[in-house]
Amino acid sequence: MTGNDSVTVREAVYRGMITDSIRRVALSEGRQPEALLESITEGSVVIMRRGDYALGIGKGLRTKVNVNIGSAPNRVSVEDEVEKARVAEEFGTDTISDLSMGGDIRRIRQAIFRHTRVPVTTVPIYQTAAEHGIDRMSNQDILATVREQAAAGVSSMVLHAVSADILELLKRHPRILGVVSKGGSITSAYMHLNNCENPYIVMMDEILAIFREHDIVLSLGNTARSGCIHDESDPAARQELKENVALAHSALEQGVQVIIEGAGGHIRLDRISRSVRDYKRASPFPLFVAGPLPTDIAVGYDHLAGCVGASAACAAGADYLCSITPSEHLGLPGPDQVKEGLIAFKIAAHIGDIVKNRSDLADKELAVKRSRLDREGQFASAMDEPRARQLAGEQETCSMCGDFCAIRLMKQILESPVRK
Amino acid sequence: MTGNDSVTVREAVYRGMITDSIRRVALSEGRQPEALLESITEGSVVIMRRGDYALGIGKGLRTKVNVNIGSAPNRVSVEDEVEKARVAEEFGTDTISDLSMGGDIRRIRQAIFRHTRVPVTTVPIYQTAAEHGIDRMSNQDILATVREQAAAGVSSMVLHAVSADILELLKRHPRILGVVSKGGSITSAYMHLNNCENPYIVMMDEILAIFREHDIVLSLGNTARSGCIHDESDPAARQELKENVALAHSALEQGVQVIIEGAGGHIRLDRISRSVRDYKRASPFPLFVAGPLPTDIAVGYDHLAGCVGASAACAAGADYLCSITPSEHLGLPGPDQVKEGLIAFKIAAHIGDIVKNRSDLADKELAVKRSRLDREGQFASAMDEPRARQLAGEQETCSMCGDFCAIRLMKQILESPVRK
Repeated sequence: MTGNDSVTVREAVYRGMITDSIRRVALSEGRQPEALLESITEGSVVIMRRGDYALGIGKGLRTKVNVNIGSAPNRVSVEDEVEKARVAEEFGTDTISDLSMGGDIRRIRQAIFRHTRVPVTTVPIYQTAAEHGIDRMSNQDILATVREQAAAGVSSMVLHAVSADILELLKRHPRILGVVSKGGSITSAYMHLNNCENPYIVMMDEILAIFREHDIVLSLGNTARSGCIHDESDPAARQELKENVALAHSALEQGVQVIIEGAGGHIRLDRISRSVRDYKRASPFPLFVAGPLPTDIAVGYDHLAGCVGASAACAAGADYLCSITPSEHLGLPGPDQVKEGLIAFKIAAHIGDIVKNRSDLADKELAVKRSRLDREGQFASAMDEPRARQLAGEQETCSMCGDFCAIRLMKQILESPVRK
Repeated sequence: MTGNDSVTVREAVYRGMITDSIRRVALSEGRQPEALLESITEGSVVIMRRGDYALGIGKGLRTKVNVNIGSAPNRVSVEDEVEKARVAEEFGTDTISDLSMGGDIRRIRQAIFRHTRVPVTTVPIYQTAAEHGIDRMSNQDILATVREQAAAGVSSMVLHAVSADILELLKRHPRILGVVSKGGSITSAYMHLNNCENPYIVMMDEILAIFREHDIVLSLGNTARSGCIHDESDPAARQELKENVALAHSALEQGVQVIIEGAGGHIRLDRISRSVRDYKRASPFPLFVAGPLPTDIAVGYDHLAGCVGASAACAAGADYLCSITPSEHLGLPGPDQVKEGLIAFKIAAHIGDIVKNRSDLADKELAVKRSRLDREGQFASAMDEPRARQLAGEQETCSMCGDFCAIRLMKQILESPVRK
């Protein structure tokens, strides 16, 4: 079990018990513990636990943001990954996904654990493929990785349960960019080489038993997400959503918490809300969104395009955002890019929460500070205070308008008597 | 006259003449010159001219982006302003607004003209206030500045025609942040000090004569735009929109092209589309939007929040975006911040154009390059190629996934025979 409660979250549900984790999440989200327990019961909220840390994700809660870190086969540095994790926590990430595929994956994971306290997610097919090779690994190797990562204390794992039927649909309805999900493509390649059904579907009962024992949240990956706006919402994508929702219901019944990855990839801006609402109609489970990117052309600035798409997705109901860095489509991000991506998605989550949860308290506070020309107050509210101070320059007052400051000029006028 | 055509754009309308400017704009936008002339006739498209440069803004055309540059009273550097203008043109700005209020304003404007070719916009009240002081300037000083800037060759001027009635509405319905438009507040302060009606409203006929003679596009400023999301869409804002639309119709009848600034400021994401559609129902004139910012809290990252708001505004029909830099609310931006803001808004304009104008050709081209793992092609498509190359690092192939590249892995599978 990854948390300190004596029972898992789903056991608490069966017993109608308000555990410490549930109480802490309720407190931090301003919810009643009983109402939160109800949401967990119906599957619309999950709690990810790590030690005494408990994070709620789902309906009615603040939108959460994940960062992806981890080594690549040809770029391995434990120090870099620790630094990315540290920067991510400093700038307020809610979770970290360790997607390492290069070097000593166990050692990197251990180092990330030592330097962080937020929940950590893994994608077991990555480690299995990196250690054994796609062409040599077996179902039992995948299961062994799942066991190992569970024992290591991860809070959530992403499984790409793409069925052989979905692969056939992908073949029948060609796309420009095929499949761009790395976990989905490794899993598909394994199925293709062995001419077999998806290993997670085949071993689901054993895997759910491991997740139940360790209180791990099942995250169903999105193999058929679109890699360009042209490929959005085809038969494979629709079928995957259906199958994932069915799997999620079955997992919930077997005492495992679930989130589903969807409505992500590359999607035109006007179709993002629809895509999220379609998901929400079909599924009670928290929606984890990668991106989405409302254009393909923002090379080197995909965190910006992602901020736009994620804001729209979140406003429409997405619960959990996977940040995208400026390095997307180009290479492995470094700590600076992880930070840039995270801040873009924290802003998106907040823009969405203003709409979805009516959470505009921080905005109002900042507006009042601005009305008082309270520069220090504004710096203190900044997500990145050193950057705000640097942009403000050395001047004691704002250099934008000097004596022609609109707020100052208007104060006297607007407080003058109204016309009779 | 700012352009090389022998007649102004509005004269061409009266004579039903396809001038060189109209022909060039039609060609660059893929429109028929006759259809474009019709749009200009009804006022839904304007053409800004500068020398042999002609830029179309409005219905059915690519969304355009403006950058604001210019000195502040306490921060003056001709070199900085020239560098901002140069960087803005390098990264594809459509227009430049010279908002200088410090130092030798004429010299700065001349330097910007020498180093650029895109249309330049000014806000005459700035120069008048900077040179005379708000408390000492007169209607005749304002008119003299308009004449001087017209003779200098600017393509467009922003006038804040905020009426005394609107100021009363602002007093009667208090806001957290009052008025945050600098031009609007200077104009209002002048009206308050002199207990008079708006100088532009009083002198509109003389001003329109100058604009008509020099083929200058009238840009009606947005004094009552909201300075925080709490202040959005109050009686003053609604009244200003009505009065500006009436002024625009009158200007059009008097042979002057017009755009209107609106739907900008700080607006919750779910209200941006509504705000743009409300404008479009009330007005045929091109909509110039500053921002909008769907949150107040993005201190130091307002270009990101602005990218979200501008994407939504553009998708809903906004025609012309004023970029916002990371320095917004903090100080005068330098060249780096101007570049960051511009790129964010170029991306927003494109995200919006995909929806508004079905312009996804560039996206499809990039998607095809990605499907071919054509890294060089991707770099060549980047808005900022050096940045893309730097993010990609030294490796010859993408460092993200190495051998586990999804696109490569899936190619073979997806091209294998379908199941019988």
